[in-house]
Amino acid sequence: MAERIQCDVAVLGTGPAGLQAAIHAARRKADVLVLGKIVKSSAYQTHVENYCCIDGTTGEALLEEGRRQAERMGARFLDEDAVSIRKTHPGFEITTEGGSIVSCKAVVLAMGISRKTLKVPGEKEFLGRGVSYCVECDAHFFKDKVVAVVGCESAAVSGALTLLFYAREVHLVCRKLLVAENLAERLRETPVVLHEGRWVEAIEGTTEVESLLLDDGTRLPVQGVFIELGAKGAVELAAELGVALDPETMEYVSVNRRQETNVAGIYAAGDICGPPWQIAKAVGEGCVAGLEAAAYAKKPAKETS
Amino acid sequence: MAERIQCDVAVLGTGPAGLQAAIHAARRKADVLVLGKIVKSSAYQTHVENYCCIDGTTGEALLEEGRRQAERMGARFLDEDAVSIRKTHPGFEITTEGGSIVSCKAVVLAMGISRKTLKVPGEKEFLGRGVSYCVECDAHFFKDKVVAVVGCESAAVSGALTLLFYAREVHLVCRKLLVAENLAERLRETPVVLHEGRWVEAIEGTTEVESLLLDDGTRLPVQGVFIELGAKGAVELAAELGVALDPETMEYVSVNRRQETNVAGIYAAGDICGPPWQIAKAVGEGCVAGLEAAAYAKKPAKETS
Repeated sequence: MAERIQCDVAVLGTGPAGLQAAIHAARRKADVLVLGKIVKSSAYQTHVENYCCIDGTTGEALLEEGRRQAERMGARFLDEDAVSIRKTHPGFEITTEGGSIVSCKAVVLAMGISRKTLKVPGEKEFLGRGVSYCVECDAHFFKDKVVAVVGCESAAVSGALTLLFYAREVHLVCRKLLVAENLAERLRETPVVLHEGRWVEAIEGTTEVESLLLDDGTRLPVQGVFIELGAKGAVELAAELGVALDPETMEYVSVNRRQETNVAGIYAAGDICGPPWQIAKAVGEGCVAGLEAAAYAKKPAKETS
Repeated sequence: MAERIQCDVAVLGTGPAGLQAAIHAARRKADVLVLGKIVKSSAYQTHVENYCCIDGTTGEALLEEGRRQAERMGARFLDEDAVSIRKTHPGFEITTEGGSIVSCKAVVLAMGISRKTLKVPGEKEFLGRGVSYCVECDAHFFKDKVVAVVGCESAAVSGALTLLFYAREVHLVCRKLLVAENLAERLRETPVVLHEGRWVEAIEGTTEVESLLLDDGTRLPVQGVFIELGAKGAVELAAELGVALDPETMEYVSVNRRQETNVAGIYAAGDICGPPWQIAKAVGEGCVAGLEAAAYAKKPAKETS
C-alpha cells in the first residue's frame, strides 16, 4: 500500500552491500529503511565458498540471515524497488514501485548492476549449467574443460586470458575486437582461439551446455560459455541525482574510499561501484557506506545543507 | 625450524583481512603463504554481531573457520611474525622471527595495528620525552643512552636487538617471552639484559623519563622506554620498504581503491589502512588486495619489473 515514510538513511538494495550498510547504519542509531527484493541480489542464487569466514552456504541462506540481523539492529524493510529519486531540501525523496514516498537524509545506493544478456536461445535455460556472466566467480568450475567467451571488449578479452589458467581450451567469439592494441596483441600471443567476425545464435545442450551455434552455421563444442558484454551500469537512478560515474568505464558509480559519491548525502557500495564481483568486497564497502551515511544523517541540518 | 620458502603472494597477518586476501589470492591460483598468529588478531577475542551475515559468533570461531577455508583453497600458513622485509629483484624477501626466509613476488600487509598501551602512570606524560611506541622511528634519539623495551613478543625482542646498534645499554622487561625459539636464542647471545617475569608499574621522571618502577619494587634507571606490546608494527615493516603513510594521520598505510600502496607489488588491507575497525571493512579490503596481489604475481616478469 502506498504510504509516506520518513527515515534517516534509505538503503537501496538488499544484497550483501545493502544489508551490511543497513546493519552498520542502524548500529549507529540511524533510523534505516531498506528498499528492494532479496531474491534479486546476484548473490541470492550463488553457492558461497570464498567469503571469509563462512564456507559452503547458499546465497539465499546468507542473505536471509543478514536481513534478520539488520532487523534485530532496528532496520526496517520494504520489499519494493525504487523507481525514482530526487533531491529535496534538505535530503531526498524516493518513489517506490508501489507508489510509496520515502523521505530521507542520506541514501546508500547498493542495487548492484544488471548484466547484459545475449538474448539467444539456451541462455536462460543453461544459466548456472554452463552459462555464466562472471569469469571471476565461475572460472574454477571449468577446470580442464573447453569454454568460450562471448564479447568484443576488454571484459571479454581479459576474461579469456584469465580462463587460460583453468580451462583446457578457450575460444573467444567476437564480431570485431574493440580493445586497445596491446591487449589485442597479448591475446594473439596466447592459445586463445579467436573467432572474429562471428557471433552466437544459440546455446545448445540437453541438461547442460554442449555447444554454441555460430552465425556461419558451424557448431563449437564447449562445456561452458561466459557472456562478457560489459557490465551494464544500473545507474539510471544515480543519474537522476547527478551522481558521477567512473570516467574510465562510464558504467559504475564513482566513489572515494569513504564511499562518498560527488553528491553530498549519497553513498554507494557493492557491484554498483565496479568489480571485483565479490561478497567480501560488497560488505566492506557497505560497512563504510552505512557508517558514513549514518554520521551524515545525524549531523545538524546546517552542516548537511 | 628456519627454512627457505618460495611463494607468489605472502600475506602478513591472519585476521579477517589477511584470511580473505589469502582466500582470494589462492582462488586465483597464486601460491600463497600466510604469516602470523591467529590468536593475535584484534578480532580474535571479540563477540561478532555486526558482520553480515553471521550473528552471535566469536572472533575465535570465525578466524579458525577462515583459516580452514584458506587452507582448502591451497594457502599455506606459517605461525610466525615477519620481523623484516626488503625489496629484491624481482620481488621481496621476508625474514620471520624464527629465521625463515620467504621469497615472494607480491605482499599483502594485513597485520592490523597495535593500539596497545601499558596504561601505567607516566606513560602519557612522558610520550615523546623518553616514551616511544616505535623503535624504527625513534632509536636514533637514544644514542649511547640506557633504554628499556617493554613487551614479550617479536616486536619487543627485535626492537631490543635493533636498539643495540644505538643505545649503550638495553633492557627487556617481559612477563614471559613469547617468541620462536631461535629468536629467543639470538636474544640470549646478545648483551640485552632480560628481566623475565617482571612488569612495569610506573614510568618515572621529572621533565623526562628517568626510571622504571618494576613490579618487584626495584627501580631501573633508563632514559628511554619503548613500549612494544604486539607483533612487529605494520608501520615499521612498511617503513622498511618505503611504503607511504596516510599524510593526514601518519599512522596508517596509504592505499588507493585497488589497495595498492605506492610500492609496486605491495598491497595493504584492514586496520593497517585506517578506520573503521570493522570485520566487514577488513574482508572487503582483503578481497581486493588478494585479487590484485595474485594478478600482479602472475604477470610476466618484464611487466612487474
